[in-house]
Parts: sequence; C-alpha cells; structure tokens
Amino acid sequence: MPNDIRLLTDLEWIKLQIKQQNTEDLEDLCREANARELAFIMSHLNMDDRVALLNLLPSELGADILQDIPDAHTTDIISEMEVADAVAIFNEMESDEQVDLIIDLEDNEAEAILSELDEEDAAEVRRLVEYDPDSAGGLMVTEYISLPDDYTVQDAVVNVKANQDEYEDYQIKYLYVTDQHNTFLGIVEMYDLILAEPNRLLKELLSHAKSFPVHVSLDDLVGFFEAHDYRGVAVIDEKGKMLGVVLRQDALLANSEKLTKEHLESQGIVGGEELRTMPVWLRSKRRLSWLSVNIFLNIIAASVIAFHQDTLTSVIALAVFLPIISDMSGCSGNQAVAVSMRELSVGTVRPREVFTVLWQELSVGLINGLVLGLLIGIAAFLWKGNVFLGMVVGGALMLNTLVAVSLGGTLPLILKGFDIDPALASGPILTTITDMLGFFLTLTFAALALSHLGGI
Amino acid sequence: MPNDIRLLTDLEWIKLQIKQQNTEDLEDLCREANARELAFIMSHLNMDDRVALLNLLPSELGADILQDIPDAHTTDIISEMEVADAVAIFNEMESDEQVDLIIDLEDNEAEAILSELDEEDAAEVRRLVEYDPDSAGGLMVTEYISLPDDYTVQDAVVNVKANQDEYEDYQIKYLYVTDQHNTFLGIVEMYDLILAEPNRLLKELLSHAKSFPVHVSLDDLVGFFEAHDYRGVAVIDEKGKMLGVVLRQDALLANSEKLTKEHLESQGIVGGEELRTMPVWLRSKRRLSWLSVNIFLNIIAASVIAFHQDTLTSVIALAVFLPIISDMSGCSGNQAVAVSMRELSVGTVRPREVFTVLWQELSVGLINGLVLGLLIGIAAFLWKGNVFLGMVVGGALMLNTLVAVSLGGTLPLILKGFDIDPALASGPILTTITDMLGFFLTLTFAALALSHLGGI
Repeated sequence: MPNDIRLLTDLEWIKLQIKQQNTEDLEDLCREANARELAFIMSHLNMDDRVALLNLLPSELGADILQDIPDAHTTDIISEMEVADAVAIFNEMESDEQVDLIIDLEDNEAEAILSELDEEDAAEVRRLVEYDPDSAGGLMVTEYISLPDDYTVQDAVVNVKANQDEYEDYQIKYLYVTDQHNTFLGIVEMYDLILAEPNRLLKELLSHAKSFPVHVSLDDLVGFFEAHDYRGVAVIDEKGKMLGVVLRQDALLANSEKLTKEHLESQGIVGGEELRTMPVWLRSKRRLSWLSVNIFLNIIAASVIAFHQDTLTSVIALAVFLPIISDMSGCSGNQAVAVSMRELSVGTVRPREVFTVLWQELSVGLINGLVLGLLIGIAAFLWKGNVFLGMVVGGALMLNTLVAVSLGGTLPLILKGFDIDPALASGPILTTITDMLGFFLTLTFAALALSHLGGI
Repeated sequence: MPNDIRLLTDLEWIKLQIKQQNTEDLEDLCREANARELAFIMSHLNMDDRVALLNLLPSELGADILQDIPDAHTTDIISEMEVADAVAIFNEMESDEQVDLIIDLEDNEAEAILSELDEEDAAEVRRLVEYDPDSAGGLMVTEYISLPDDYTVQDAVVNVKANQDEYEDYQIKYLYVTDQHNTFLGIVEMYDLILAEPNRLLKELLSHAKSFPVHVSLDDLVGFFEAHDYRGVAVIDEKGKMLGVVLRQDALLANSEKLTKEHLESQGIVGGEELRTMPVWLRSKRRLSWLSVNIFLNIIAASVIAFHQDTLTSVIALAVFLPIISDMSGCSGNQAVAVSMRELSVGTVRPREVFTVLWQELSVGLINGLVLGLLIGIAAFLWKGNVFLGMVVGGALMLNTLVAVSLGGTLPLILKGFDIDPALASGPILTTITDMLGFFLTLTFAALALSHLGGI
C-alpha cells in the first residue's frame, strides 16, 4: 500500500492490484483518496478495470466513489456492470443520487435495475423520478429521522440508540418532528436534545418549522440556504405532509452544476458535460451541433460584405479592419453578457429591468466605444497616412461597440424573460447582429468618404 | 408588514419604512428574505438607505445580510458607515468573513475598524489576514467547541450546557478534542454524545482525526469535502496544534467563487466581479484593460492580411471569408479550452498530460475541420461557381480548425503547468494565433491558385 499521496497517480500499481484482486490495499487507497483523485483514477482506467475495481470493493464504498466522479462516468460504468453488481451499489446510494442515475441511464438499463429492487424501494424511486430534477422534489432525500411530536426527549434518545445502525448513514441528523398525520411541525437538533430535560416533549423544543412545497425551484432553495444556516429543510406536499429533506449541500452542488452547464453552453459545449474519455464521434457531433449553427450565422453576417464588394474593391485596406471590428465588438458585447448573466444569478437584477440595464450599459459602451474607436482610428491613420480611413474605421468601431455593449447587457434579460436559455443563445445572436452592423457601418462610411480614400 | 413575497420587490415600501424607522417590520422582512432577495434589495437602495437600514437592524442581522450580498457591496457599505456602527456589525461576523472584509477594505478603513476592536480580537484578525485567502488558514473559522480528551461524556454535556449562549452561534457543533498541549486528537459528534454512556472519556469516542496543515490549498480541501461527508475539518500548525476549523460550506463557497471568477475572466471581466451599481468609470476602466490588450493582438493578427494585400486585390471575394474563418476557428478553439478548463477543475486531467489531450483533440479537430471546411467550401463554390475558391477557403478553414482545436485543448494545460492563469490567457493567445494562421492559410492558398481564381 503506497502511503505517499503522489503514488495515487501510479496507475500501473493500481492496475496490478486490480489484477491481483488485492482488495485490502485498494480499499485503503479509495477511502483515503479525495474526489479529484478518484475522478483521475476512474477516468484513466479502462472500462474492464473500472468494473473490476468496483466489484472488488464493498458496495457502500463503490456507491461513494460513483457519487464523487462526473455523472457521465457513473452512468457508463453502471451500464457496463452485471445487473446484480449494479443493484448492490445502487442500494447503497442516497435517494437523490439514485434518481439522477435512473434518469441518465437508458430506459432498458434503468428498468433492469428497478426490477431487481425491493418492491417498496422501486416504487419510491419511480415516484421520485417524476419530479423535476431542479425542484425540491427532485433534490430531496428520503433518508432522515422522523419522530412524533408527543415523544419526550427520553423517548427520542431511546429511539436514536435503537436505530443507531440505520441513522448512522443519514447525512442529516436533525429530528424532523411530525404529528400523527405526518404533518411536519418543526425540527429538533441533537444539540437541543443534549441541552433539554429528559421529560420535555419534542413539540416544546422545536427550533424552526421552515419547509418548502415539493415544486419549489432550485433557485429559491439556493437563495434560502445562502441566507440561512440550516443543513437541510423539510419538503412537504400540498397538505403539509412531510415527503423528504433537501440537504443544503445537495442544493448548493446542483446550483454549481447548473452554473457550470451555463458556462460550458456559453462556450459552445451543448448537451451536457464533455469528457475526453467519451467516444470521438459523440464529442465531434455535440460540438458540431453548435458550430454548424454558428457557421450558418457567420455566412449570413458576412453576406453584408458581399453586398458592398464595390466599396471594398476601391479601398482594399478596409479588408484588414473588418475582422478586427467583428472580433472587438464580439468581445465588448460578451463582457456585458457575462455581467448580466452573473447579476441574474446573484439576484441583483431581474428580467424586467431591461431599460435600467440598457441605460447603465449605454454609458460604458459610449466610453469604451470612444476609446477603442480612437485606438483603431489612430492605427489606421498611422498605417496609411489617411485621416479619412481613420475616421471611417474608428467611427464604425465606436458606434458598433456602443450597440454591442448595450445589446450584450440587455439580451440575457430579454431571453430570460421569454424563457429562452440565455447562456446558450446570447452569444450567437449578439455576434451575428454586431458582425452585420459592423460590416455595414464600415463599408457604408467608406462609401460616403470614397472620394477621400482613393488609392489605399 | 407585507406577508406576500412579491411585495419584497416593493422597494418604495421598504424606503418608506426606513424613513419612518419602522424597525420591527424591516427586521421581519430581512429575516424572511433569502440571499437573492437581500442582494436585490441592497443593490436597489441608495447608499444612505442601505446604511440607515443596517443601523436600524440588530447588528447580528446586519452581519448576516452583509455575508449574503456580493462582497463588493459589503465593502462599499462598511466604508460608508460610522466606524462605531461598522465595528458593531464586524463583531458579529465570523472570523473568515471578518478577514475577507479587512482584506477588501482600504488600509485606513481597515485600521479604523481594527483599532476599535478588543485587543485580543484585533490581534487574531491581524494574524488570520496573513494567510493566503485560498488556503486552510485563510478559510478557517476560529469559532468552534474545543474540549480536553480526559473529559467524560458527562463533563462534556455540562460544558455544552454552561456555554450554551456562546456555542449557539457556532456553525459547527462537533466537539474538537485536544490534549493538554492543544494537540488535535479527533472529533466527537453531538450524536455520539447522545449514544454514549455518561462516564466514558471523550478520548475513547473519537470518530475521526482528519486534519489539514494550515497551508493546504483550497483545491485539496474541496477534493476532500467532495469525497467525505464531514461538515468541517480541523486545521493544525506544523506541531499538530489546533488553529481552527474549515467548514465544508466555506470551502465549497470559495470554490464556486473561484470558478465564477474564472468564467468571468474568460469572458473578459478582469479584476473581480462587476456590479452595475459600481461607478461607470471603474466598470469602463476594468473592461478596457482587457479590450485594449485584445485590440493590440487583433491588429497584429490582421497585419497578416495587410502583407497579402495583392492577393486580396486580385480575389476580392476572399474578404468575405476572412472574418468567417477567424470567428469559426475561435469558436472551435474555445470549445476545446472550455473542456480542458472543466477537466482540470474536476481532476480528470493533469497539466502534464498535454500529449494525451493533444492526441484526443486532433481526432475531433480533424472531423470537425473536415465538416466545417466542406460546408464553407460548398458555400463559396455555390456563391461564385468557382471550385478553386471553394477549395481555398474550405482547405484553409479545415486546417485552421485542426490547429485551433488542438491548441485550444492543450493551451490551458500548458499555461497551468507554467502557473499562468489559464482562464485569463487562453482565449486571447488562442484567437491571435488562429487568426494569424487562418488569414495566412487563406491568402497563401489563394496566391497558389491565383490563376484559377481570376475575375471573382
């Protein structure tokens, strides 16, 4: 067993232990490793070794590992395992992770696993799968301690001791107190249990009774957890009956996954995370689905140049500036998009504030347009010694920056208002419009100043 | 008091309550509001109202609110408050938040607050400020329950009851057990305290003894917390003495802030988050610092076109395709950058695996280059009816896509290997190189095929 953490990267050693079925050392290694190390190991083993490793380890540890590595890997590995082995691990996962996995698996694979579960467990998973994954119902776990309100502190302690084995694996050890109809009343912390007299009733000790309806959105849950220190919050149905608990960490994790997805989408990675262990054809296909829309939009934008070919023939120097104006306007606009996306996610701006944002961006667009227009104008003047060329390209970039910044700031709010994913759509729409306008402005200004631009 | 959550957006109502010093309703509202709602309210009040609101509320609630809204707002508001009011709120913040605030404040403002603190508190903050904010020392809180190892369970319960008021505000209620030299030995959970016999010693109940040295990085802490369910982990000095506790949620929050910063940097927002409530000149200046580097790089790239002006004059139609090739290569390359940045952050790839990634990207680059080259080639052929024009622009985009994808995939690893921030530098380096190469390839191919391209 290597006790040096650097040896974790010694993949050959790991492969050898798997071959030799050296369960003990592999178990020690996997228990010690952190999430990044596990992700590294699993992504660098071939599929046979991954499956063999999981089969050697205790199911409970296997479930832990699969929860730590990227979802796409988890799904692939479970698909490759024998159903009985997959079910053993599945049974050790938390309910919210089970649901995510079932959603990600092919239908027949999901069905194969569900049919091997206890009837009751299978029914529960089937019920949970129905909830929107980004709602309280989709995020909740059903593993939590629930006790009746007429229990005394003494009763509660006895119950906790009696169910020690079961409760030990629960992530949250608040006592969720309910009445006889399973209506949620409030929570009691272990800490409060220690402080209280043994004969007090749980209903007298409730520290808070915050709960969320099952359809509440991830955004609302995250806003709540960011402002309040609770480890978890009860989820109730429309009659107030308790259904489960959303853990703070699950909500925060789901939120950071959502932000990552938005970031990847804005860079043209669509359809979920891409890992380089995925097949080449799948990676190509997904990237092309975005690129092929983009090339089409690019051709439309560039057609503006084709319509002004005469001007360009007369002033060939303009061809040098067209890509600069296109790229710089895109950059300026994307900065404003990024700020708006961030403000939407923090909550400091709301979709209907389009005109406020427009106003705030106009001023930045004006300043930056002036500066950038001046810079490119001077560069053009210095190159050809013609002040009119400087005015044409400088003026075009100035105006186009103003439009790009204003449009970039407002577009995410407008798209969000219409329920279109702003991470995905803002960039292509923005650059198509600013490219077209940039080419149009440059070539139109040049046409107007044509008599002063001769011979360059 | 509005009991409808929609009324939270009724800023006029809130302003009125502030004016009328209606503390009670404002307190109810702020306790109910979640982080996004608080961020919205605070960003939409003017500075006088923000300060007035915080002065009306209990300091402890004020501290909560300032921890929930974006850091830049917190710093601004504290700067505007009377020192005595700021100190009252400061005293209610957790030690890690205090440290962040002191770092963000101007030196003289920080000093004004520190000089008003208890001597002991001030010394502690000054000590904590020395740690790297993204290390265990910079992330830890010093509010935790520490008990000697020779305490019995009964002793521990008595201690918890006696210090109830102090402990109540602690985010973490594990018992951190130390020996007489303050050497960290392990933790006991409240849950374990309930299960154990009253006369057992804490040293017999330790459930784990995981700790991290004070200089360990945020990345390592996040990897640990993602793989292990602990709510917090002890931080020790080189002699094993306990210094504080890093809470899981603080590490995860710092990590998501780091990812957000990387995302904003990759879109050209440098120097920290931008909020539209910041002064226009500051927002312009920060965005320009990035844009002015970019325009310079763009001019260098476009100079390649200037050197091939003769070819362009002969085949003016090429001017239409230059911006398309520039933009499409940038898109293809940025997709690969995004995948590499993501894999680096998840841990499935390490900086020295440059050649593996190069190989993995070459195949995607080849397929996508062929498809995109074919698309643009056909478009060019259809437009001008000249098959050579199609071959020139199609071939150039094909080759350039191959380079852009390979470079985009490897560049973040190379930069990271040299300790250069890949989020910031990858984009500009990538697009400058692919622009230059794209223009060069198109115009060189055209020069070679010039005799077949006459008159278009």
